[in-house]
Amino acid sequence: MTTQAFGTHGADQALEAMTIQRRGLRPDDVAIDIDYCGVCHSDLHFARNDWGFSIYPLVPGHEIIGTVREVGEKVTGFKPGDRVGVGCLVDSCRDCGACDDGLEQYCEKGATGTYNGRDQHDGSLTFGGYSESVVVSERFVLSVPDSLDPARAAPLLCAGITTYSPLRHVKVGPGHKVGVIGMGGLGHMGIKFARAMGAEVTLLTRSQAKADEALAQGAHHVLVTTDSEQMKASAEHFDFLLNTVPVQHDLNPYMETLKRDGTMILVGQVDTVEPPLHTGPLLFRRRAILGSLIGGLPETQEMLDFCAEHGIECDIEMIRMQDINSAYERLEKGDVKYRFVIDMASLRAA
Amino acid sequence: MTTQAFGTHGADQALEAMTIQRRGLRPDDVAIDIDYCGVCHSDLHFARNDWGFSIYPLVPGHEIIGTVREVGEKVTGFKPGDRVGVGCLVDSCRDCGACDDGLEQYCEKGATGTYNGRDQHDGSLTFGGYSESVVVSERFVLSVPDSLDPARAAPLLCAGITTYSPLRHVKVGPGHKVGVIGMGGLGHMGIKFARAMGAEVTLLTRSQAKADEALAQGAHHVLVTTDSEQMKASAEHFDFLLNTVPVQHDLNPYMETLKRDGTMILVGQVDTVEPPLHTGPLLFRRRAILGSLIGGLPETQEMLDFCAEHGIECDIEMIRMQDINSAYERLEKGDVKYRFVIDMASLRAA
Repeated sequence: MTTQAFGTHGADQALEAMTIQRRGLRPDDVAIDIDYCGVCHSDLHFARNDWGFSIYPLVPGHEIIGTVREVGEKVTGFKPGDRVGVGCLVDSCRDCGACDDGLEQYCEKGATGTYNGRDQHDGSLTFGGYSESVVVSERFVLSVPDSLDPARAAPLLCAGITTYSPLRHVKVGPGHKVGVIGMGGLGHMGIKFARAMGAEVTLLTRSQAKADEALAQGAHHVLVTTDSEQMKASAEHFDFLLNTVPVQHDLNPYMETLKRDGTMILVGQVDTVEPPLHTGPLLFRRRAILGSLIGGLPETQEMLDFCAEHGIECDIEMIRMQDINSAYERLEKGDVKYRFVIDMASLRAA
Repeated sequence: MTTQAFGTHGADQALEAMTIQRRGLRPDDVAIDIDYCGVCHSDLHFARNDWGFSIYPLVPGHEIIGTVREVGEKVTGFKPGDRVGVGCLVDSCRDCGACDDGLEQYCEKGATGTYNGRDQHDGSLTFGGYSESVVVSERFVLSVPDSLDPARAAPLLCAGITTYSPLRHVKVGPGHKVGVIGMGGLGHMGIKFARAMGAEVTLLTRSQAKADEALAQGAHHVLVTTDSEQMKASAEHFDFLLNTVPVQHDLNPYMETLKRDGTMILVGQVDTVEPPLHTGPLLFRRRAILGSLIGGLPETQEMLDFCAEHGIECDIEMIRMQDINSAYERLEKGDVKYRFVIDMASLRAA
């Protein structure tokens, strides 16, 4: 089935309108008309081949909210008209330990990305949510609670689960002091989640300018990391640090703000740690550094339900599909509060 | 009280005989005649001021086994003639959260090292176990089970507890696959402990030459890390890696041998991580890196009792006090299986 989309034909090319093919329904498939799609920083990295494994044509988008149009004959959990979501994954082996544990993001044979992946049945390239519709196997489709605004729910599928999952994994709760490093799409969700889980939340930021915003997002405190007095006063303060910074930066000063047995959770940066990590802060206080990647399907559903229960949504700026290239330029400068979401009606209207 | 010792007056000087003063007994003090003292790699670092904070004269030694000579009036746990041990610490604030938890090594106000430390009462410099005797507050004195050979028990006070504590902390037990990286003083103890705790144990070593030794120490398997086929076959294999390597090395290839949710425990290296750590292996399998430093007093006693129960001792090479400088030379080359222990009778005989 021919579908309108926006994508790019090469690392140095702008995104433009293109047509792609969506497969006919397999028995377990759900066909989804896309209403909204969030713009993740990864979309930009993939479009420009920053990680070296982009395949073109490339249609980004893995924060998808839509409406079920049609379901395959074996689908039991969804029916036409249902509001649904699709995140970063559309398939996995479904047979390894990770998949059995509902942690498809860690599939031992490699999960299939919502875009830039290869369909496990026919080897076709997967295309993401910058498009009118998508066809996804039921296991990888999420139910979106009615009470959530669909546009503001879109970024939950990546920015939301990426921060929710590790906070749950380490069992953040009342009595914990949680520091969130960075306040972009991930960071502002981290603040909301940690607060809703009952923790005392601090935003760690280089600039006092973000203080008011952070408090408005639910942070109890702000720690300006460029202020050496504040940093000194925060030594051995946090149980957990949620580090959402997506680029190389010095981890060492942050490590000192963790209590004994504290953990820094890395969710943003996929790169070498430079300047290099010093092991001293780890050994001398039994601290840890832990990585975490998005979340599995059961936990993503749990996160959506948690958001409905606690009234948590993403703060977004809505854009038209046709404005994606200028949105990327602003995204590169960090000029968005806190996530662009594409109104896919703009693509249909074109 | 004047005591014979061996120490150094400067970073570039050999160790030599010297006399030091030991304090008279405070009410909570135990006076110990030293029988044996292990030679830790830290002793060498301190003697040569490798870490930049050595204070001279410096008398190394923090793997002390001795016999109680006299006790202060308030001492209840020891009496003259008891076999006792002293490890890396001789005091701490005794009032912070760490001390309350029996984790004096993480004392928030700074624990007092057995040597190169400052006594918390009179500010005098502490001198280590390369000496005839030592005076230590009861809380920092350990009871050595009769069934342990005293010379072979000495290195348990540092090399032993340094490996035992983190294995306990992460709850190593039956069903776990534990990899031990490096087979020096720490590594060979790590193998023994992990085995006794019920884990399946693998030595990771650069050289096939250590295979037979490792199996003799209790390892079930040996993984030669310079063999790319073996490394490839060991991807996502271990629950825990106990990394005992004391110098800078590339952590990244080891990280790939950890399962999802696996943890690398660093106990040997206090330095920057170079070549730099890549965060990819952490994020993509939710792996962690954890530091750990020796152990607290209650756990050190537990470790000694565990050794008695399981017949675990350190493999040592006995030396005379007068041979310490040549022992340091051999230690630098890794030419010791697996720990030098000084027979302190040699000092008294001199």
